[in-house]
Amino acid sequence: VSAAEDAIAVFDSGIGGLTVLSSLARGFPQENFVYLGDTARLPYGDKSPATILKYVQQNVRFLKTLSLKAVIIACNSASSVVLEQTRLDGLPLFNVIEPGAALAWQSSTNKRIAVMGTQATIRQGAYTTKLKAQAAALGQDVHVEAIACPLLVPLVEQGWFEDPITNLVLYRYLHSLRQLDIDTLIMGCTHYPLLKAAIGRVVGAGVTLVHSGEAMVRTLKNADLAWRPPASPPRRLRLLTTDLSPQFHKLAQHILHGLEFGGAECVEI
Amino acid sequence: VSAAEDAIAVFDSGIGGLTVLSSLARGFPQENFVYLGDTARLPYGDKSPATILKYVQQNVRFLKTLSLKAVIIACNSASSVVLEQTRLDGLPLFNVIEPGAALAWQSSTNKRIAVMGTQATIRQGAYTTKLKAQAAALGQDVHVEAIACPLLVPLVEQGWFEDPITNLVLYRYLHSLRQLDIDTLIMGCTHYPLLKAAIGRVVGAGVTLVHSGEAMVRTLKNADLAWRPPASPPRRLRLLTTDLSPQFHKLAQHILHGLEFGGAECVEI
Repeated sequence: VSAAEDAIAVFDSGIGGLTVLSSLARGFPQENFVYLGDTARLPYGDKSPATILKYVQQNVRFLKTLSLKAVIIACNSASSVVLEQTRLDGLPLFNVIEPGAALAWQSSTNKRIAVMGTQATIRQGAYTTKLKAQAAALGQDVHVEAIACPLLVPLVEQGWFEDPITNLVLYRYLHSLRQLDIDTLIMGCTHYPLLKAAIGRVVGAGVTLVHSGEAMVRTLKNADLAWRPPASPPRRLRLLTTDLSPQFHKLAQHILHGLEFGGAECVEI
Repeated sequence: VSAAEDAIAVFDSGIGGLTVLSSLARGFPQENFVYLGDTARLPYGDKSPATILKYVQQNVRFLKTLSLKAVIIACNSASSVVLEQTRLDGLPLFNVIEPGAALAWQSSTNKRIAVMGTQATIRQGAYTTKLKAQAAALGQDVHVEAIACPLLVPLVEQGWFEDPITNLVLYRYLHSLRQLDIDTLIMGCTHYPLLKAAIGRVVGAGVTLVHSGEAMVRTLKNADLAWRPPASPPRRLRLLTTDLSPQFHKLAQHILHGLEFGGAECVEI
């Protein structure tokens, strides 16, 4: 694997992080990006924090062999276990939890916020902790409703985005939010933006949906990174995975439509 | 990890293989069993053959440190990649594909057989290959219908065994079998026996459902193993996993109800 000079690395447990890459690639049209999906060991969402941390460390060790200017942990389950780390061997390290929590806090007027995520993300409680810390710092109250939605990743990987079965599953998971006067919902897993329309129909138009990719663009705009000058040669989007997966290519085309990117390369980690 | 003398090892990618262990433990009430679930890397069902083979080899290397008389690969995806191996360092090695295919062949009167499985199992096509070889050897014809059912494992792990959503998903996957005059259906993933009643309702009472655990009991009854004598001390069921998982304990209690077993121990592989 040759070096992609000064690229921003986006790491994910598999395929879902492409939604974060998509937002970043569109938000920073001159920047090079390297995406690494750990498809050999996905999903992280049902695994223990210790196992997730081990996998993140192994993947980050590999990413360090490339020429990078920042590492973005796109996976929510992985972000939960590296929450307090802001640098990595001199490189800025970003997780999706803090940008998402900050954007949700700002979007919410009644401070009644819900977060949906995998089992691991919900058990770790990172969004809840961040939102409560934010509220406490301002002497305010916040109500956080956390909902584990383990079937949504498989439904997305099955390709049933607009489907009555997916609608029923979403209704089962989310219908109680209607009674709870929630005004903001964090889509706390990178797969969920692919279900944004269906989620919006269940929770109603009055609820703001927070997208990790959009939150990350907002955070990076304020970050002190050496941006490529306007006259640079065309940027490059490289896709790396740890296992070949037919779903990866199909979903990459769906999520990255309109962007130029190379075929996925398989790397051994 | 101490040695479990002369035990039969049952290896699975995670939790589902407990249905095979359950059949074996009931079929051989005097035998010691060691179950190993690779929960740190589950599921295998969406991964490539090369990655699955690597994981199986690592797990089998660990199992060899115990005192065993046979190794059963309960996972269908893993069985598909070690299909031609019948011994392992002098130990008999069994996969679930051959017993399942043999039982299906025997059960079917019209030789129109369906197999449901994960993406990996269906792509490998091992049941289809075995059934066609069986038919060819007898100069007969067989029609095999193979259906990938990737959502069923997550539905079982969510605990929605008897649920309208699960019924809808099963109907989506299996309703075409009604038109195809199938008389035998191989439940080609260890999770599926937990959905046996619901599967039966979709395909109709005229279709025989083949259970990997029951097929394996039948195969082992004919195997040349050193069985423990009737006067042996009480047998032991040991459960090992590569990651702690709350679902594991809950599903173990559900699947192994009525059997005595120890709490799951976590091992590093």
